[in-house]
Amino acid sequence: MVTIKDSVHDHIGVEGVAADLLDTPALQRLRRIRQLGTVGLVYPSANHTRFEHSLGVYHLADAALSELGIAGARAERLRAAAILHDVGHTPFSHNVESLVARRTGRMHDEVEDLLEEGDVARALTLHDIAPDAVAELIAGGGEFGQLISGELDVDRMDYLVRDAHHTGVPYGTIDAGRLVRELRFLDGRLVLAAGNVQTAESLLVARSLMNPVVYNHHVARISKAMLRRASERLLEVGATTAAELRRMDDAGLLVALRECSETAVFARRLDTRSLYKRAIWAELRDVPDDVLDADHGVLREHEREIASRAGVDPDAVILDVPDRPRMSESTSRVVVNGEVRALESQSTLVTALRRASHEQWRLGVYAPEEETEAVGRAAEATIGLDLDALVVDVHKGVNTTLDEF
Amino acid sequence: MVTIKDSVHDHIGVEGVAADLLDTPALQRLRRIRQLGTVGLVYPSANHTRFEHSLGVYHLADAALSELGIAGARAERLRAAAILHDVGHTPFSHNVESLVARRTGRMHDEVEDLLEEGDVARALTLHDIAPDAVAELIAGGGEFGQLISGELDVDRMDYLVRDAHHTGVPYGTIDAGRLVRELRFLDGRLVLAAGNVQTAESLLVARSLMNPVVYNHHVARISKAMLRRASERLLEVGATTAAELRRMDDAGLLVALRECSETAVFARRLDTRSLYKRAIWAELRDVPDDVLDADHGVLREHEREIASRAGVDPDAVILDVPDRPRMSESTSRVVVNGEVRALESQSTLVTALRRASHEQWRLGVYAPEEETEAVGRAAEATIGLDLDALVVDVHKGVNTTLDEF
Amino acid sequence: MVTIKDSVHDHIGVEGVAADLLDTPALQRLRRIRQLGTVGLVYPSANHTRFEHSLGVYHLADAALSELGIAGARAERLRAAAILHDVGHTPFSHNVESLVARRTGRMHDEVEDLLEEGDVARALTLHDIAPDAVAELIAGGGEFGQLISGELDVDRMDYLVRDAHHTGVPYGTIDAGRLVRELRFLDGRLVLAAGNVQTAESLLVARSLMNPVVYNHHVARISKAMLRRASERLLEVGATTAAELRRMDDAGLLVALRECSETAVFARRLDTRSLYKRAIWAELRDVPDDVLDADHGVLREHEREIASRAGVDPDAVILDVPDRPRMSESTSRVVVNGEVRALESQSTLVTALRRASHEQWRLGVYAPEEETEAVGRAAEATIGLDLDALVVDVHKGVNTTLDEF
Amino acid sequence: MVTIKDSVHDHIGVEGVAADLLDTPALQRLRRIRQLGTVGLVYPSANHTRFEHSLGVYHLADAALSELGIAGARAERLRAAAILHDVGHTPFSHNVESLVARRTGRMHDEVEDLLEEGDVARALTLHDIAPDAVAELIAGGGEFGQLISGELDVDRMDYLVRDAHHTGVPYGTIDAGRLVRELRFLDGRLVLAAGNVQTAESLLVARSLMNPVVYNHHVARISKAMLRRASERLLEVGATTAAELRRMDDAGLLVALRECSETAVFARRLDTRSLYKRAIWAELRDVPDDVLDADHGVLREHEREIASRAGVDPDAVILDVPDRPRMSESTSRVVVNGEVRALESQSTLVTALRRASHEQWRLGVYAPEEETEAVGRAAEATIGLDLDALVVDVHKGVNTTLDEF
Repeated sequence: MVTIKDSVHDHIGVEGVAADLLDTPALQRLRRIRQLGTVGLVYPSANHTRFEHSLGVYHLADAALSELGIAGARAERLRAAAILHDVGHTPFSHNVESLVARRTGRMHDEVEDLLEEGDVARALTLHDIAPDAVAELIAGGGEFGQLISGELDVDRMDYLVRDAHHTGVPYGTIDAGRLVRELRFLDGRLVLAAGNVQTAESLLVARSLMNPVVYNHHVARISKAMLRRASERLLEVGATTAAELRRMDDAGLLVALRECSETAVFARRLDTRSLYKRAIWAELRDVPDDVLDADHGVLREHEREIASRAGVDPDAVILDVPDRPRMSESTSRVVVNGEVRALESQSTLVTALRRASHEQWRLGVYAPEEETEAVGRAAEATIGLDLDALVVDVHKGVNTTLDEF
Repeated sequence: MVTIKDSVHDHIGVEGVAADLLDTPALQRLRRIRQLGTVGLVYPSANHTRFEHSLGVYHLADAALSELGIAGARAERLRAAAILHDVGHTPFSHNVESLVARRTGRMHDEVEDLLEEGDVARALTLHDIAPDAVAELIAGGGEFGQLISGELDVDRMDYLVRDAHHTGVPYGTIDAGRLVRELRFLDGRLVLAAGNVQTAESLLVARSLMNPVVYNHHVARISKAMLRRASERLLEVGATTAAELRRMDDAGLLVALRECSETAVFARRLDTRSLYKRAIWAELRDVPDDVLDADHGVLREHEREIASRAGVDPDAVILDVPDRPRMSESTSRVVVNGEVRALESQSTLVTALRRASHEQWRLGVYAPEEETEAVGRAAEATIGLDLDALVVDVHKGVNTTLDEF
Repeated sequence: MVTIKDSVHDHIGVEGVAADLLDTPALQRLRRIRQLGTVGLVYPSANHTRFEHSLGVYHLADAALSELGIAGARAERLRAAAILHDVGHTPFSHNVESLVARRTGRMHDEVEDLLEEGDVARALTLHDIAPDAVAELIAGGGEFGQLISGELDVDRMDYLVRDAHHTGVPYGTIDAGRLVRELRFLDGRLVLAAGNVQTAESLLVARSLMNPVVYNHHVARISKAMLRRASERLLEVGATTAAELRRMDDAGLLVALRECSETAVFARRLDTRSLYKRAIWAELRDVPDDVLDADHGVLREHEREIASRAGVDPDAVILDVPDRPRMSESTSRVVVNGEVRALESQSTLVTALRRASHEQWRLGVYAPEEETEAVGRAAEATIGLDLDALVVDVHKGVNTTLDEF
Repeated sequence: MVTIKDSVHDHIGVEGVAADLLDTPALQRLRRIRQLGTVGLVYPSANHTRFEHSLGVYHLADAALSELGIAGARAERLRAAAILHDVGHTPFSHNVESLVARRTGRMHDEVEDLLEEGDVARALTLHDIAPDAVAELIAGGGEFGQLISGELDVDRMDYLVRDAHHTGVPYGTIDAGRLVRELRFLDGRLVLAAGNVQTAESLLVARSLMNPVVYNHHVARISKAMLRRASERLLEVGATTAAELRRMDDAGLLVALRECSETAVFARRLDTRSLYKRAIWAELRDVPDDVLDADHGVLREHEREIASRAGVDPDAVILDVPDRPRMSESTSRVVVNGEVRALESQSTLVTALRRASHEQWRLGVYAPEEETEAVGRAAEATIGLDLDALVVDVHKGVNTTLDEF
């Protein structure tokens, strides 16, 4: 058994197939991918990586398996899935994931191809584990895939605690020990034992509090959008391919952006934190449905039109339209009065938090500081927003619940 | 300056009038009064005292004054109020407060009489501070009393963090540093600066999560009710007076209960954690209004009637009816779009948490384990509850969000 | 299984005989005995109890047993010993232990009589465990008693971390997780596995740093000496017996001291922190051997003589002569180069720390503030110290490494 | 004022010249330089950067200045030095520093050239601060340079706490708050106030405990040596210059190593953690003086000779000879009995820790796993070590106090 010191879970003992997987290039690569991408530009201590998070998820999965009384080959397969669950991440984690997925058809949890080759395949085979079964678990499928990717998965339990620890924000502190201990399998569903409505709620509350101050902090949003735009340019000019980009680490992507003349300005801005500013920061209710439902190509069209209307370079406009808010935790299952029920049917909080997630949602249009006014007006005309209200929004902070670090 | 090491705020520097007050018997007594009364019977680490909490409140008040730019005599008066704010607490904090208040007319924050005598009066006078002005601040009055007792007071900021730290429960973690830094005085009202809707919400969320697992955990409720009943008997048999009881410490009350033959059984039960169990644990909607609005005398009548109906000793029945839920934090004021607004008008969460506080509310009837069934049935008949539902409630855990440690 | 939330180890699961022992009056009494006696007068947050410490020792013992591969009846006996190991403590832990031991012949770890009666005996018997075997383990005897009381025992591992956590002092932080994991049994001796010289050293370093700032802080020493003196008076006047005193809790002793006219002044001083001050604070090398080797009766004689010479009341003089320094951890056994060796033979640090413990040692003579000068001079004459040096020592802080909170 | 959330010091307020310096490329670059270089290969959570450390040092310096009553232009200059003190670091912090220094003549704290150009110079000039005065402070010169670089500097206070926090190792926990509070300037020397012998000792103890398990863990030593060797090859083949290397960030160096055919194998080994192993791990007393005193050129000669003798590629041998141990903290000055004294004259521990630092010292010879035996024998012959003893040393762990994670 290898024992590894972790700043969140203290000692983590790794053994069996997980110990063999630990030494593979695919897993070692995660040491060089920051868990929160560009969030470090807001919270300087947030430099933790997908590698330590993978160890944490393995640790909680192992504890959960032991509580659930699952052992043997099934357990070993799940432990493999736990430690491998993030092996498909692009550099800077979610920041360029959609970009790569549009071209490769693979999101970060679609990893069959990665498990079926090289050292990972060898390690799995050595322990009589079928790579495709592990890939299925990572995608949330199979009997116990819910433990890896589902409403009550150990992934979430680890990242909420870990992200809070490393950002220094006190809001993500859930009782991971209790959550793991209270998991049950009933009729093929992962649920929380009786008496845990509040335990389940605390997961949602933590995410709801972390969202605006960490995950969707406007500086994180802007820097992530700039990184994504720069990476897209890199692909467009043929400096790299989507398949290569998918397997880079943070260092590889940073240097590629610096070395390509089309993206060097973005790289310089990211390196020196000379970020774009908000030209528009609009609430969900003010955004037309056709913008919300537009695909990537249409949004790029909008950007070009805004740039042209504002008389600025096309790269000086970034239109950032997140997916509509959703809260998968709300379907977590808890045992109440002897029956399995969805959390949303039991909890007043869930309804409120769902509404809060709608209120926290923002569309952003970003531009270099000196262009924000022109770009804001052009965006208003192009995508049909009411600019007067929004200028106030940006500059006076209407309804903003965001930390302005 | 005296520097004191605190497990929550690290070093606390105490100077001026506060340093002189520190040495008074009135403040030293708080070393022997547990902050959370009988909650230690649920969370064994929760042995922190009103003394360390008083230091913490002083520390945060001092930081807030410095942020608000308040200095000189006004500040010194507030610092005196901060360190003295809990000097009126009865033994075991809130556990016997109402009992004493009914007989003395004084709740824990009504302390004029205590400040106007002895060493406290001498220390205040030495620093040219009028005791009655300090008492007014402690009661939340005066220009800056809101800082000591109000919706955004430093009392709450300290106790949420401290209670979480000492129970080990991860839910009370607010960002006290940020809260103190963002306080402003606008038009005589204490408010949070712009961009802090979520900071304000986090205070409510913390309380809402702490309530069922700590403050109103059923074992805490039961032990507190037993302590209150025993103390009431002590007064009834004349073993002590309410005025004496008000100034005892935890040790004094414990021993008094042991030494009085009428209360020795309660003392033994508390000492050995042989607590009553729930005969009834009813939700707000199932409790008739006349019970909710009944005064202490009427409730005692109900208890006697239940006991008689169940054929048990009157001391074997405790009817525990908390006040209707209220959330004073919901009127916290935050600056939004340049205007001061009440948090409840800005926050979806507040509405949900208010509803949650109604759902978490419980009426309890407690009895020795072997009498719970008889007492439950008698209580049902006496105060008009629907027992069938409730028996399920108690024994199967319907809707219970309580930690069953 | 009962799960208990602990502020140090998070969740502690208690089962088997330990769960049954948890409910006994003997163990519940430990909730009301502070782990560090009067140290709370120096560190206001240090209110933790022998009860939570007992849970922590049980938790670490259980983890160690699992690492060592010890299961079944032997393990269950050891778990019983772990949770019961402090059941013999007098009120305020070590503060009055020697006083009671002189009269009852029993130190806190001599508990056969306590295990052979009442609920504890019943719980042990129910699990087929012989009370005397458990008592032997608690005293450090038997095959595995070293785990409970020895150089590498789990008692020490818990208290160093717990005392640091609750005082807020950062020096006691050892790696308890690693220590427990590295324990081995070789030839009937508990040792640390190869590669752990430093792990073993860290235990000594932690104690060495904690000693002067916590355990032997002069205010802790003075208050402890006053409590001991007051308790001795209580016994002398027959207000209680040593056997009764042994089984009191903190509250019982505090109130007994208040209620006895001979000790009420001491009680008042302790309650209001109006403590004696140092009249003498002498280093080991300045103290004559006959004083170091004197028994309690002789020291009491010295006190009376000092009082008489200074013209003060006998109760105004306390002579506090600790045992000569010793460091039991220095004989910890570690595996080095395949052999078991004593730590002291491997570690340069051990020698230094032993010397440091000699340098930190102090004899104290305490008196009411206004009498310190007269008492200091009288003590000098009586027990043969060089006062001129010592007056400087006390008032200017020569060589003092003590925190002056 | 900018407020930044830090995982160690919570909120750090940055204002004045420091706020302007924060936005310079020179400081932003530190976000991409890991504080502990390759230590992350041992402790996966140790990904903190020089940027957050610089903020921490600024924060402690600001607190110390306020305690020392230093304000105005002198203080502003010191704050500038504090936040800029690590601006001269090479990629991976100390890992390649010596390599660059041999060619540029500049260690990381020799930064005049960096402060006299670009945005840093502009920010300093804007605040009427002379760049060369700041450079002098960073090098430990000038009246208050000791606060930035000296035996009691705030640099050390921050890094010990921060490195412990991020590795998860519990040994670096000093009382930084107390240290900062107790600093005094006496006769132009920075000293600790009376009563702080132990506070000063705790700094040494922390470093002494952190050294073998963190800073000189053998895996950290090996990976650092490999990185240094690879970087040296990069310079030798002219893929970059020392001046360029000095200003790279971690990403830039990693990618440069990957892209150069001469270093790609090293890059691959570092990326996949396929590290060299110890062929020799020798104690100080076993190493001939001429090896200890050899300069870099001579050591390179030894490496080539070892390789030739062992019949392996020259890059398959790394000879790693650290400087002789030294403990600058031992000359820390403390006030004892009204006089300023060097800590080493007051503290038994210092002598022991100095001896321990000699015992912990190791010379290493590293090679690919399959070559260790041949390389070990060749090294023995070449530099005159007694191999038989050493083979035991490596494989059986004689005297090793290192954590084997």
